[in-house]
Amino acid sequence: MHRLLILSKHAAAYRGLVDAANLPDLETGSEPSADVDVVLGEPSLIRQVLPSLPSLRWVQSTWAGVEPLLDPALRRDYTLTNARGVFGGLMSEYVFGYLIAHERLIFDKRAAQQAGRWDPTPPGTLRGKQIGLLGVGSIGAALARTAKHFGMRVKGYTRASEDCADVDQYFHGDDLTPFAADLDYLVSVMPNTSATRHLVDATLLAALPARAVFVNPGRGTVVDEAALADALQSGRLAGAVLDVFQQEPLPGDHVFWGTPNVIITSHTAALSVPADIAPVFIDNYTRWITGAGLRYQVDFERGY
Amino acid sequence: MHRLLILSKHAAAYRGLVDAANLPDLETGSEPSADVDVVLGEPSLIRQVLPSLPSLRWVQSTWAGVEPLLDPALRRDYTLTNARGVFGGLMSEYVFGYLIAHERLIFDKRAAQQAGRWDPTPPGTLRGKQIGLLGVGSIGAALARTAKHFGMRVKGYTRASEDCADVDQYFHGDDLTPFAADLDYLVSVMPNTSATRHLVDATLLAALPARAVFVNPGRGTVVDEAALADALQSGRLAGAVLDVFQQEPLPGDHVFWGTPNVIITSHTAALSVPADIAPVFIDNYTRWITGAGLRYQVDFERGY
Repeated sequence: MHRLLILSKHAAAYRGLVDAANLPDLETGSEPSADVDVVLGEPSLIRQVLPSLPSLRWVQSTWAGVEPLLDPALRRDYTLTNARGVFGGLMSEYVFGYLIAHERLIFDKRAAQQAGRWDPTPPGTLRGKQIGLLGVGSIGAALARTAKHFGMRVKGYTRASEDCADVDQYFHGDDLTPFAADLDYLVSVMPNTSATRHLVDATLLAALPARAVFVNPGRGTVVDEAALADALQSGRLAGAVLDVFQQEPLPGDHVFWGTPNVIITSHTAALSVPADIAPVFIDNYTRWITGAGLRYQVDFERGY
Repeated sequence: MHRLLILSKHAAAYRGLVDAANLPDLETGSEPSADVDVVLGEPSLIRQVLPSLPSLRWVQSTWAGVEPLLDPALRRDYTLTNARGVFGGLMSEYVFGYLIAHERLIFDKRAAQQAGRWDPTPPGTLRGKQIGLLGVGSIGAALARTAKHFGMRVKGYTRASEDCADVDQYFHGDDLTPFAADLDYLVSVMPNTSATRHLVDATLLAALPARAVFVNPGRGTVVDEAALADALQSGRLAGAVLDVFQQEPLPGDHVFWGTPNVIITSHTAALSVPADIAPVFIDNYTRWITGAGLRYQVDFERGY
């Protein structure tokens, strides 16, 4: 018999979905105990109970990001899996919704309407534009596929992988200048690791054309926020759509609130919903008890 | 030798593109004359010179809609072809840009930002939602493909055709109630014909769920505007995104300017640009002089 602890603000929904799957040899609870060997939930909540779970063998995160569990001071004597393969669709809606809003002048046209003014200003189009993806994992691959659907050219920056056929051109290495040249849109879906910290810095931003828009639905730590605010304030970058920040909620006195052409979406780009994540757990549990390899294992050193 | 008359507000661009194609046996001009046998241009401009073109054999419209040439009082002793197969991409960007804006609360989040407020309100998603397409020609088919890309279910209303495999369920006939039931989004891409006039009327609007949003990038004549304003004002319909109207520009005293949850985009959904339309003419000209059938011929009686 296995003992599952669910730690989530959506615990009731997760419990309902897991119970409905009638998984064999599984009891579900909501309190830490000595016999808990599996945990499903949010990394920020799980972190607090790690010392109280002597039998822990496997944690399934309901989030893609698992930073709270990567602190080197914490135990790593269990298998950690994260949520992957479920955010691509939501991320595509977020990114391309705001890209089209930019091309289509959606906010300008709204303002014209509110002034009672017929506004035949011709909009732009995504077709033929160039998008650069910082990171081409499962989310980046979904974005690449949507970009091709809309007739865009796709550049991808990765450490080494070149697995996604929807990317037209790959870039690697320390110099991001050739990757950034001629982009209309730069989108970061990098995880938060020591290697990605401030990858979007003054040098990368300076290599972008002035017409470019930066979109960040990934992790705030990837961005040098002072450099980004400076690029926007000086007009060297056309705009930024930001879902994530170094500190969240974004502090009331943060420079971004008063920076022109910034859109702030308050970490809502791709929320984890139980209907998406429970099937990941259920599939992984079935694999676990049959000895098959777990999907989406996190490398504690690499950070994703 | 054939004599081409170009009548367009983009005449210089069209002339450059046509001349660059070095089409055989073709001279291009910008004034009506007795030897003009081919016209490329906007139907509203062509209508005025029809009586001055005794040798006319073929008109290629730069627009999809050819209403100005369908007046029964006008001559019909020539072949009329319209612009087709080029607007699907632009229409997809328009429709899905505004659908995502609705799901993602893009205007609400913008207002929260302008008030300096972190707004974690969870957005919706297109995935699993149901879209109904009034008309499934080349534009409707492009919309259906984008809808499937985003994980939507697609209903299609046509006179008889069922050619597009991206439509999950087809509807025909006079009763549109089964088609409208359970739609999250109703999109009209119907042409302006006597058969489509006021197809979107009080009965159809009443059959939609209150959560539904109506999008019209097609033709304004398809809509009973008074019935639509009434449905929106009474809260029986969640919203409308309107690009086209019975009268354009929309008169300053029109009820829509003051109707809640209406978005007015001033007939900019899919503008005809010479780079898209010139290739349609060039391909058709090559067909014409070699005796192949012209693409996109308009049936004067049917109206499209």
